Order: sequence, then structure tokens, then C-alpha cells
Amino acid sequence: MKTPESGLGGDQVEGRRAVLELLRAGRRSVRRVQISHGLDRDAVLDEIVERAGTKVSLVAPERLASIARSDAHQGVVATAAPVRAVDIDELLEADHAFLVALDGVTDPRNLGAVMRSAETAGATGLVLPRHRSARLTPTVMKAAAGAAEYLPIASVAGIPAALERARRHGVWSVGLDERGAASLFDLTLADQAIVLVLGAEGRGLARLTRDRCDVLVHIPMRGRLASLNVSAAAALASHEVARRRFT
Amino acid sequence: MKTPESGLGGDQVEGRRAVLELLRAGRRSVRRVQISHGLDRDAVLDEIVERAGTKVSLVAPERLASIARSDAHQGVVATAAPVRAVDIDELLEADHAFLVALDGVTDPRNLGAVMRSAETAGATGLVLPRHRSARLTPTVMKAAAGAAEYLPIASVAGIPAALERARRHGVWSVGLDERGAASLFDLTLADQAIVLVLGAEGRGLARLTRDRCDVLVHIPMRGRLASLNVSAAAALASHEVARRRFT
Repeated sequence: MKTPESGLGGDQVEGRRAVLELLRAGRRSVRRVQISHGLDRDAVLDEIVERAGTKVSLVAPERLASIARSDAHQGVVATAAPVRAVDIDELLEADHAFLVALDGVTDPRNLGAVMRSAETAGATGLVLPRHRSARLTPTVMKAAAGAAEYLPIASVAGIPAALERARRHGVWSVGLDERGAASLFDLTLADQAIVLVLGAEGRGLARLTRDRCDVLVHIPMRGRLASLNVSAAAALASHEVARRRFT
Repeated sequence: MKTPESGLGGDQVEGRRAVLELLRAGRRSVRRVQISHGLDRDAVLDEIVERAGTKVSLVAPERLASIARSDAHQGVVATAAPVRAVDIDELLEADHAFLVALDGVTDPRNLGAVMRSAETAGATGLVLPRHRSARLTPTVMKAAAGAAEYLPIASVAGIPAALERARRHGVWSVGLDERGAASLFDLTLADQAIVLVLGAEGRGLARLTRDRCDVLVHIPMRGRLASLNVSAAAALASHEVARRRFT
């Protein structure tokens, strides 16, 4: 199936939290919520059933398993209109913009986890390169646990060009890089309009991306290992910005 | 195969980083390092080959795939003596103990990610309940990226009893709980001997565990979602302790 330019995927949502937030947010039309027979009821499932109303259909567990595309659907699969990308300029023009840009993260669980951390830190948007990042597959949506419903996403041709655009909008680019001179925890820019830039698992920031950052910061490593997982780094960086902004 | 009381698993290590740290640490005997034919060389692979010496065998990619038990072995699988558990009292008696206890985390990628974050934050040990946590499977070891080689692990009958023991050793128990009155970022205890306690994905801390904690702290949520992934929460809590201790 051809994906329109603005479609990021996200049309199949699996897992209780992710489906619940899809319904709560109400920002895209939900076609159907399929729930496995014989699930243990809990408050989340009850709210899903109540909110989805006539869109719910109960199906056999084997049928649900055959529809599901993530490995942890928890008995609930929804189909909805795809998540639509927003314009990068819209994100950059926002007051106190707080964006997270991912340069080459391809692991779907990492992408989802970064989205969840960014949303809970109050980020105002996510910037993904069109060709090198994972799309919003069911595994991404599950790991994001509903963040895709709230966090606006811009899809750009390349991160370096997006950072150049950020500069023209007066938005500072802060790259996470183990070679960064300053510590993340000394980041005094955090209360200004910024975009946090995270590189790919293993390789870190690409050189061109690194060169375009206004500031490079590192996360202090206190043990023997040299680096953190990208989703852990994203949690730390996003919530450090939140800590500086809101307390 | 029967697992001895003190064996935590970890005898099969997959992925380049994890195998490299197994060899660098040199704390357990390595039997064999199997590497897939025709891999792209990089600095990590070169160091693995150099350190493993005669223990390296090159195998066909299909053969390696059939041996591997994680989904991301990166062409490298090592076998070694299992990781041995340490005594909880040993961990509690250490100067400035900084422990992380997991109450019911069962997802192997989360467990590995928590280990990696704890190690990089300078944690002095990990506490796992014997029956409810994931063991050190190849997927855990891959996600831990070598942390299992450096972070001592105690395996206990139950977390509440371990916290009681901590109290007798003068070690404070700090639980992460969304109902905690104080913010994680106001945790002034961080420079004392502490054990950070994290609950299961979704359910959070069990009641008995929560009751045994000296302090409950929450991570401020700045968006619409109510909670973070346990591995993101662990990264934030571990590195907040590090920030307070070391800066």
C-alpha cells in the first residue's frame, strides 16, 4: 500500500494503554477495536469498552493473535486513521518549543520509548527523518503507550537541514554526544526554545548533525560502560529539560 | 537443566557490546566465542577477536542464527560460566551502597536496560527476587550491553524482606511510586546508602513493598500520559542519584 507523504503509519494500535489513549485523545477516527474473548477485566479494559462503544468486537484469541503485529498486544487491537505529520515550522514557531529530534533510531521499541519519555517530559514535538527512522508500526505504538496521540510529529528530509531551520527560528540545537564538553546536568539553555538531538544506537550523532548543533552535552558515566541505550538517554535528557523548566 | 541456587543464567551472551564487555571484564571463564562469517569488521569486533584468541570460531550465518536465542545477536555469540549471585548482605554492607531493587519486572529487555542504566550511574548492586523476575537470558544480556559483568546481583526470596534487611543495615529504601509525595528531583537522601525500588511495568510497586519503603518519590509527569516505562524510570532515578552524589 502506498503511504501518503503525511502519513506516518500508526493505523494499527495494539496494547491496552496505547488503545486507551487513542480513544481518550479522540484526535483521529477509530474504525474498530478488537478484543480477545476471555480477557481478565481491569479498569483500563473497562474504559476501552465504554469509550469504544459499538466499535468493539469480541474475537477469538487465535484470531486476535493472527491480526496483531507486535509481540505484546495484550488482547486488544484497534484500527484507526493514520497519524498525520505536522509541519516542522509549526513546531519551531511554538512558544517555548521543546522538540526531540532522532537522527537514525531504527529500533521500534526504542522509538516508542523515546516518544513516551518525551511526552511525559512535556515536549512539544518530535522530529523524525523520513527515510532512516522506524515508522509508527504496532510495536512502536505499543512502546509509545499512547504518546503518539499527543506528541506532534514532523517528518523531515534530513536532521541537519531541520537544525538549520531551527536556528533561523531562534531554536537552539542541543546534541547528546559522549564527546560533548558540558554535562547534560549543566544545561542552562533548557528554559529556552530548544531541540534535543539524539543519534542512532551505537553510532551516535552523524558528523553533519553534530556539526549543526549549537551545544553538545554528554551524560556523565559513573561505571565501566561507555554509553547508555538511546531510550535511556532520551529519558534523561527530556526530563532534565523538564526539571529545569518547571521547577 | 537444573540451575544451581547461585546461578542467574547469563551463560549465553549475544551481541557485540555484551560479548566485548564479557571479555574485557574477565570475571568469568569464557568457553567459546562464535562469530558469523562475512561480518563487517569494526573496532568492537576486532577487539573481540583479539581478546578471545583461540576461543573464536567462525561459523556460517545460518548456524549462528540457529544457536542465537535473542533477536539481535549481531553475528556474535559467546558461551561462558554463568553469572553468580552475590549475598545481599555483602551489597548492603558496602560503603555508600547504591542498590537498585526490581519488584516484579519480567520483560527481559526492560531488565537488561535497567541494569545498563544502573551500572552507568555508578550503582553498586542490583537486587532481584528469585521467582518473579526474568533471569539473565540472552535477550537480557544483550540489552544490558555488558552491565551484567560489572554490576553485582543479589537474588532474594522477596523484596519486602530485603528492604527490612536494608533497614537493619542503615540503608534507606526509596520507592518510585506515582503516589509518592515528594518529587524524585528533591531526593536529598541520594548521597546516603540507599536502595532504589522499582515496581513492575503497569502495576507499579506491590503494596507490601511500598509499605516497607522509607520514602516514596514520584517522577513529575508534564504531559498527558500518567506513567513512564520502567526502564526510563530506572534511568531517571539512577542518574538522579548519581547527579546528587557526584556533582
